[in-house]
Amino acid sequence: MSSLLRSALAGGVLRLTLADAATRNSLSEAMMGALRAALAEAAGDRSVRVIVLAAEGPAFSSGHNLKEITAHRADPDKGAAYFATLFDSCAALMLGIVNHPKPVIAEVAGLASAAGCQLVASCDLAIAAEGARFCTPGVNIGLFCSTPMVALSRNVASKHAMEMLLTGDVYGAEDAQRFGLVNRVVPAADLTATVNELAAKIASKSMVTLRTGKQAFYRQRDLPLAEAYAYTARVMTENLLMRDAEEGIAAFIGKRDPQWSDEP
Amino acid sequence: MSSLLRSALAGGVLRLTLADAATRNSLSEAMMGALRAALAEAAGDRSVRVIVLAAEGPAFSSGHNLKEITAHRADPDKGAAYFATLFDSCAALMLGIVNHPKPVIAEVAGLASAAGCQLVASCDLAIAAEGARFCTPGVNIGLFCSTPMVALSRNVASKHAMEMLLTGDVYGAEDAQRFGLVNRVVPAADLTATVNELAAKIASKSMVTLRTGKQAFYRQRDLPLAEAYAYTARVMTENLLMRDAEEGIAAFIGKRDPQWSDEP
Amino acid sequence: MSSLLRSALAGGVLRLTLADAATRNSLSEAMMGALRAALAEAAGDRSVRVIVLAAEGPAFSSGHNLKEITAHRADPDKGAAYFATLFDSCAALMLGIVNHPKPVIAEVAGLASAAGCQLVASCDLAIAAEGARFCTPGVNIGLFCSTPMVALSRNVASKHAMEMLLTGDVYGAEDAQRFGLVNRVVPAADLTATVNELAAKIASKSMVTLRTGKQAFYRQRDLPLAEAYAYTARVMTENLLMRDAEEGIAAFIGKRDPQWSDEP
Repeated sequence: MSSLLRSALAGGVLRLTLADAATRNSLSEAMMGALRAALAEAAGDRSVRVIVLAAEGPAFSSGHNLKEITAHRADPDKGAAYFATLFDSCAALMLGIVNHPKPVIAEVAGLASAAGCQLVASCDLAIAAEGARFCTPGVNIGLFCSTPMVALSRNVASKHAMEMLLTGDVYGAEDAQRFGLVNRVVPAADLTATVNELAAKIASKSMVTLRTGKQAFYRQRDLPLAEAYAYTARVMTENLLMRDAEEGIAAFIGKRDPQWSDEP
Repeated sequence: MSSLLRSALAGGVLRLTLADAATRNSLSEAMMGALRAALAEAAGDRSVRVIVLAAEGPAFSSGHNLKEITAHRADPDKGAAYFATLFDSCAALMLGIVNHPKPVIAEVAGLASAAGCQLVASCDLAIAAEGARFCTPGVNIGLFCSTPMVALSRNVASKHAMEMLLTGDVYGAEDAQRFGLVNRVVPAADLTATVNELAAKIASKSMVTLRTGKQAFYRQRDLPLAEAYAYTARVMTENLLMRDAEEGIAAFIGKRDPQWSDEP
Repeated sequence: MSSLLRSALAGGVLRLTLADAATRNSLSEAMMGALRAALAEAAGDRSVRVIVLAAEGPAFSSGHNLKEITAHRADPDKGAAYFATLFDSCAALMLGIVNHPKPVIAEVAGLASAAGCQLVASCDLAIAAEGARFCTPGVNIGLFCSTPMVALSRNVASKHAMEMLLTGDVYGAEDAQRFGLVNRVVPAADLTATVNELAAKIASKSMVTLRTGKQAFYRQRDLPLAEAYAYTARVMTENLLMRDAEEGIAAFIGKRDPQWSDEP
């Protein structure tokens, strides 16, 4: 595990903490690499049931590392090849969260900016502390937040997304909740406990069921309505034939607790 | 009409009341069949202008009938064929509401759960009583609410949909309104009167206009922007050439009440 | 400039004011022509950085001009060709706002009705005065608001859009904000100052950056998630190679104000 990313596993919940306060948890090459590696490892680790993305320091994440970007302007191609690789890597990270078999919860205190805001938007769920702030300020430095807006615009209404993108202004946690970017806002002192409670609740479910449902959610969202139903009707049938659905339904009818196949 | 579904027609408003409190208005084969039959009949019945879906008993609907599902595990194929038919039938019911030529309003008191929540999400409009509750709890029994989420995710923001789907928790009427799942929340004592007033207002419109517009709404929603405009520009032109648009516009300019072609 | 549309340019902000109070700023052929011409001219005018759409009189805009429409019922084809041209022209106006290289802000006081409501929904941002009202009342005259709903349903949740469309009712500014149709509601006395402040802020950004980002926003919104990322990763790379991104990032790192290439 990279020193940029602290990792802790308890009760099936893997807590990944961005730990590069010196760069305000920028999504440097090293940080994106560490995140992608940790997520890939967690995908195949049966002891991980839910993932929490947290951060230490005053910023959740400041987004791309501008110093790294600037250094590559000295490349013979002025950085073109590097930049293309960088944004492909960032998109792969964000898609890796969406396509991850396990639910991912963002725990946001401090400022989530640009690709840092995209990281929050890409998670399945997000809980914010009262002081948390959110922005997509690329427009202020001549670099519109065009990849962040992919995730942002799939979370919040168009007018709200465009307001954040065109002004670059900083919005508080209450605005983020009103826009739909975060699920809930809690006092800073309660943030980790709230996230842990939510994560523990989800970790108590059947993993194969969570994986099946999460994958289907994002796939069906991109389909026309009738196709979405044709697809999910197949998913439901397959899900129902799984051992955990048989057990879960039998337990429900029998008024007892289910025993999932993948329980620790 | 099945005994599971009570039907009453007044003033152009067809009120279909789920009446199987013993199974918490589960969407059993018989109930889905009764609903599909009643909707099909209403589609061709000129005396029906608007449809209200209501329910009696403490639950609006508990979703699929788990005892029926469990019984079919004894089938030679462990239920595979039955389950596929079941979910196709459920998707056909939900699509039948979306594609129905007449507006459908959900009147929700009590708990709308799983496919019962999907039923609310599939209606054009929904009014909830203050005590109403909503959940997609399939994850608790190992069967993710993958078909309900098709309707849910086309009503509410992704973070809210995923919170309902991943936790299985029960949300109150106020949350449902905030999420966009229901249009309005009213005191339980006012629920039916509020729905009747809304239904009567819509029933006073031209039916061919409602049919034209409702169909276009869901079709254009699935299209890219420019295609949506190309399609709806054609719809508007055709609509304008209809007798009711000529009458409606003439009445508006002449400051008199219009007489729709399909009025009783 | 047509007498129907007043135009004023100050500080890079082009203010276009619908000035046909006699028809409640109806989107007559002449008005749509004037708007399209003004927008086309502004697209190529380097002194225009942001556009504000405002209106004088009690209505923001009443939508299509029903007297013009009615007059064409006397055409040999009962208006069919005229209507098709009319709705194509209206769609081109609305798409022209979405595809315009410069941000467009709606400043809404009074009633925005039918295609007038569509105009608000088509702008990138919208600020409303406290007394502003919104409706899509075509259903009341036998002509469903099928083109307005293209813009409306890309701004607000389906249940809210259908409520507006099926009832034709008038909704206040607070509802419009809650639905996501407008960004903010301010006292009427503060409306223009608020819009001017917002427009000035956006006008201070790099134009090529705004153009790049706005175009990418609406394109990626219509794409499946993975395609949206593949597309915007290319946009980001190209953006980063532009002179303004180099300048903007250098200025940010150097803690100085950037000098945009297109600054006046």
